[in-house]
Amino acid sequence: MAPATSVPFLDAARGQPAAHTPVWFMRQAGRSLPEYRAVRGEGSILDAIKRPDDAAELTLQPVRRYGVDAAVLYSDIVVPAHAVGFGIDVAPGTGPVAPEPFRDHTDLHRLREFEPEADTPYVLDTVRTLARELPANVPLLAFAGAPFTVASYLVEGRPSRTYEHTKRMMHTVPALWHALMERLTQHAVASIGSQLRNGARAFQLFDSWAGNLSRADYDQFVFPHSQAVFTQLREQFPDTPGIHFGIGCDHLLERMYAAGPTVLGLDWRTPISEARRRMGADLVVQGNLDPALVLAGTEVALEGARAVLADNTLADGSRHPGHIFNLGHGVNPSTNPDVLHAVVDLVQKATTR
Amino acid sequence: MAPATSVPFLDAARGQPAAHTPVWFMRQAGRSLPEYRAVRGEGSILDAIKRPDDAAELTLQPVRRYGVDAAVLYSDIVVPAHAVGFGIDVAPGTGPVAPEPFRDHTDLHRLREFEPEADTPYVLDTVRTLARELPANVPLLAFAGAPFTVASYLVEGRPSRTYEHTKRMMHTVPALWHALMERLTQHAVASIGSQLRNGARAFQLFDSWAGNLSRADYDQFVFPHSQAVFTQLREQFPDTPGIHFGIGCDHLLERMYAAGPTVLGLDWRTPISEARRRMGADLVVQGNLDPALVLAGTEVALEGARAVLADNTLADGSRHPGHIFNLGHGVNPSTNPDVLHAVVDLVQKATTR
Repeated sequence: MAPATSVPFLDAARGQPAAHTPVWFMRQAGRSLPEYRAVRGEGSILDAIKRPDDAAELTLQPVRRYGVDAAVLYSDIVVPAHAVGFGIDVAPGTGPVAPEPFRDHTDLHRLREFEPEADTPYVLDTVRTLARELPANVPLLAFAGAPFTVASYLVEGRPSRTYEHTKRMMHTVPALWHALMERLTQHAVASIGSQLRNGARAFQLFDSWAGNLSRADYDQFVFPHSQAVFTQLREQFPDTPGIHFGIGCDHLLERMYAAGPTVLGLDWRTPISEARRRMGADLVVQGNLDPALVLAGTEVALEGARAVLADNTLADGSRHPGHIFNLGHGVNPSTNPDVLHAVVDLVQKATTR
Repeated sequence: MAPATSVPFLDAARGQPAAHTPVWFMRQAGRSLPEYRAVRGEGSILDAIKRPDDAAELTLQPVRRYGVDAAVLYSDIVVPAHAVGFGIDVAPGTGPVAPEPFRDHTDLHRLREFEPEADTPYVLDTVRTLARELPANVPLLAFAGAPFTVASYLVEGRPSRTYEHTKRMMHTVPALWHALMERLTQHAVASIGSQLRNGARAFQLFDSWAGNLSRADYDQFVFPHSQAVFTQLREQFPDTPGIHFGIGCDHLLERMYAAGPTVLGLDWRTPISEARRRMGADLVVQGNLDPALVLAGTEVALEGARAVLADNTLADGSRHPGHIFNLGHGVNPSTNPDVLHAVVDLVQKATTR
């Protein structure tokens, strides 16, 4: 066994040999867990986030049940925009909904700078509780939505398939678009920074829907802002690993990596070995079991998990140290927790040094 | 002007210099056109397809209005499965719905071989009418759903985000999966073959949702069957160009090209120049203007169209002959037809030799 001070998640995030390949799951705190549903009840996630005891408990549940190597703050990417009074909520079963979407310059006034200590003291209460209660080898991950994905919710007013209004704004009023993105850059940096100052030890920037953009649009309208998030956080927290993740972003991976993360999150589409071929043999990756395979039962899930581990194997048969095991997307609400538990056990046991 | 016998679509599909870069739009016959809505009314698309006069008229409308360089048969990818009595319909506003999805071996009996002349004589009536009525320089494109995308509708029973049941079948009962795919390969080959024998002059195989698969799953469970479609059609119709298209398939493009198409369809995510860098300088491509840019008005749409044309430019400033202009996905129903018309004019005029 590794010494008690070993933190597998942080070791792997830095590309250093860890006691075992760390594993956690996006949306590991969620409706797939009966203990989650018992605490959470119905209603908006934003209300649950405002109750530090509940938010801390929901964050801890998957750590207790699965023995995962990281906890991710129970939160939502629209928390800062909601907290500054933009007028956005999360409708159960639908997702973020803004009755008055962001469409012109006057809407900037509804989106002032985010001051986490004043605007979301309950979030920082939760973070401090978790920093106290989590085992020393299970770091808390801060998180925030990337400027593009948050902007898409503000501009569309609801989940979208076409990103019609967002893309129109980029191309017809680029100055307004960039002003919006700069404001959301401040939100992301302030949000993650405040979580890190209160006890989180790494962070993930979620640009979940960036994959809907062409590379040209990403480069022109998104990249500079996501890069600013990573640059500013690196200046403030030079040793803190940051993960950059999106769905269906195979065509953007080089650019998302160039934005400055320590770790590149992969969905299940891009093989780990292919990502290293494209972005360098030292690339530290997070991922990337298809969450649909977890729905197919333990046998299929474990077969898939073994394939992910094999994909992280070097030519000499050893495993690459720079790998954090995860699904390629959030846990589906209908997932059987026992299957996820079996995946955690397999990953940790198969990779223990 | 080029001689009257020039067919820009077929020239470009073969990588030969065309009178101009040909242009057509996926779903160019659709709800974006008022004349479409007038003919089509409400009800299932499958009923409209059974009326050859209406189906031919709907196919011709965008040719008349826009002067596009190809007509695509007004049809739907579930037509063969519906015609053999599987029990699938297209619900307006939802998409394909199968009340009893394909889940086990007994369901194979509901999916017998497809005999186009006997099962869908109305489709071939439509094709023959179009072959007579279309201008000589505007070929009719045959089309069919690729085995995977059709299978996903049969197995899920409705449009899906996770492809949970489909992926489970692949991994838990692979023999059943492959039997289903072999049957759907026969459907696709028979459907496209019958359209080609009755007057269509090229074809497109739509694997719209293949992009949801990991490369490993695509290779193991889909590639052999899509390759069989192209191989069998090439044996029967050696000079007929075939296009292979899917959404969000950046990570699969090498494999989709290896399946054997003449032309690789690109959605808006992958730059044309990047596709040629990956798959060869001679690659013939179709695409790839983001349909969301067409929703943003004429100016943005034309700017986007010029960028697509520029992306098809060779180092010496000349344009690559192997390019068929299209959107990167189907026309959105809320599209303004005048914007599409302006795109057609721009592409044809800017590229006329």
